[in-house]
Amino acid sequence: MDEFALIEEFFASRVAKRADVRLGIGDDAAVTSIGSESELVIATDTIAEGTHFPAGTAPRALGHRCLAVNLSDLAAMGAAPLWCTLALSLPSADQGWLESFASGFFDLANRYDIALVGGDTIRGPLSMTVTAHGCVTPGRQVVRSGARPGEGIFVTGYPGEARAGLRLLQGKASADTESAERLTHRFLFPDARVDEGRRLVRCATAMIDISDGLHADLEKLTHASGVGADLDADRIPLSAALLNCVEESDALELALTGGDDYELCFTVPREREAELARLSSDPHCPVTRIGETSAKAGIRWTSRSRPYRVPETLFRHF
Amino acid sequence: MDEFALIEEFFASRVAKRADVRLGIGDDAAVTSIGSESELVIATDTIAEGTHFPAGTAPRALGHRCLAVNLSDLAAMGAAPLWCTLALSLPSADQGWLESFASGFFDLANRYDIALVGGDTIRGPLSMTVTAHGCVTPGRQVVRSGARPGEGIFVTGYPGEARAGLRLLQGKASADTESAERLTHRFLFPDARVDEGRRLVRCATAMIDISDGLHADLEKLTHASGVGADLDADRIPLSAALLNCVEESDALELALTGGDDYELCFTVPREREAELARLSSDPHCPVTRIGETSAKAGIRWTSRSRPYRVPETLFRHF
Repeated sequence: MDEFALIEEFFASRVAKRADVRLGIGDDAAVTSIGSESELVIATDTIAEGTHFPAGTAPRALGHRCLAVNLSDLAAMGAAPLWCTLALSLPSADQGWLESFASGFFDLANRYDIALVGGDTIRGPLSMTVTAHGCVTPGRQVVRSGARPGEGIFVTGYPGEARAGLRLLQGKASADTESAERLTHRFLFPDARVDEGRRLVRCATAMIDISDGLHADLEKLTHASGVGADLDADRIPLSAALLNCVEESDALELALTGGDDYELCFTVPREREAELARLSSDPHCPVTRIGETSAKAGIRWTSRSRPYRVPETLFRHF
Repeated sequence: MDEFALIEEFFASRVAKRADVRLGIGDDAAVTSIGSESELVIATDTIAEGTHFPAGTAPRALGHRCLAVNLSDLAAMGAAPLWCTLALSLPSADQGWLESFASGFFDLANRYDIALVGGDTIRGPLSMTVTAHGCVTPGRQVVRSGARPGEGIFVTGYPGEARAGLRLLQGKASADTESAERLTHRFLFPDARVDEGRRLVRCATAMIDISDGLHADLEKLTHASGVGADLDADRIPLSAALLNCVEESDALELALTGGDDYELCFTVPREREAELARLSSDPHCPVTRIGETSAKAGIRWTSRSRPYRVPETLFRHF
């Protein structure tokens, strides 16, 4: 057996046991069962060195990240995660690296009781492709295209922090120790808003996760829904840590265009905003109303009651 | 929108319509439905330039191959294919290359009515990761571990042809035009035995697809089943094309250790062999009995009534 086959055995030994996994890693394919009361939600995303993370990123962070970005996609549909597969391309089979990678991966997988059911390991430049599977009650997924004019637009958490964390890691910014720790952690170990996404099924009409920046992803949501939006940039929550790291105007720019936040942006009709308030009481994950959808196409930001022009940046992860 | 986002739109426009795909490409994730009479089968495999195919391989062949190797895994479970995702790493976005790749991919996908439901495209060294989804009647998958002593061991098709095709492509062998065409086609456009695999659910106790060579994959099957095997190497069907390309002793070695055949190897109890004969009447895909499982551990090959030692080769795709 070659070293890459051994890697697969190493991963297989750490997998969470789930009753709905009839057959896990080790055969030609896995067999799983999904209740007749559910539909299957499937997301797939690749992260690669040099594109999505800098060379030298801690393996524990990569194990976390390759799963988290996919869980974020499931969260944006309001799905409950179930299983995943992992295709890993590695320049070499380093035991210490793999141990750290696996702890990052399985710490997150086990938090949500997700079973790794398949995988493939090849020698090549460092990258990971995860396909994540979740479930929703039939017809209850939250798509990008469900927003109607006159609905509230909301965002979870503190956008912009992850990008500031990347700047810190690159030595392009500085902050006090506590702020720096928080910001770099936000870049390295993004929280997928899985629980929030599942709760929001009850009141959100459209939802997307913010991987490419709040403004760019909001453009996708409004475009898919055929609506426009009027937003107040001053309402975007800027965290103390972010403001400790960059000037306020920079902080706003990072929050709008930074990307890699993996927060959720969603719309809620007026009559369900009270319900939303009851659902979102987690102090670690505030939910903030930042504007309203409109029948008039286009996205219009204001700041201090004047039009605010979002800096043009074709987002690149890194 | 950047060029890689455009690639995803290009693929999305070619996808087969299926009633069980509630939401296809274009949102954060896909939503699919699986009947309550089925369980889900999930396989994932990566192919990468330099490891699984030589640089310069025709893009049409790569589009076919990245899906075929996964369909072969589904076939080895006896599953009916449903949907797949495609994660593509490309050095550049070349329109002509993509057109050819897509025709190879969708020609095969559409033959089995498989819907591409998700994907990701990144810039990087050429590789493709497909996750394929299929279904089986609950409990009716054919695993590797189901063989018992005293059962017949069978193989589909003509093992060794794909490896001879690779040698031809590398200029390491020669054959007449017709044989060369057949052999290179077998390497470039492997047929996944999807229909055969589904039929074999009725009589096979254990099954595996031959991706790493007949001998190596048979070792995995017998090991998983806790049985041994006695096999007659002279019964392995060697095609006229293969024998046109290499000497008979080489042909046998390629058939046993060649890999990339994507044929099926499986076991059938004596009392179901008559049923197997009725099921396997396709002249293009012969089914050949090559030996029997045994309670005695280990794999023993004979040729011309004498022990035959399989050359030791740690299989590498390329």
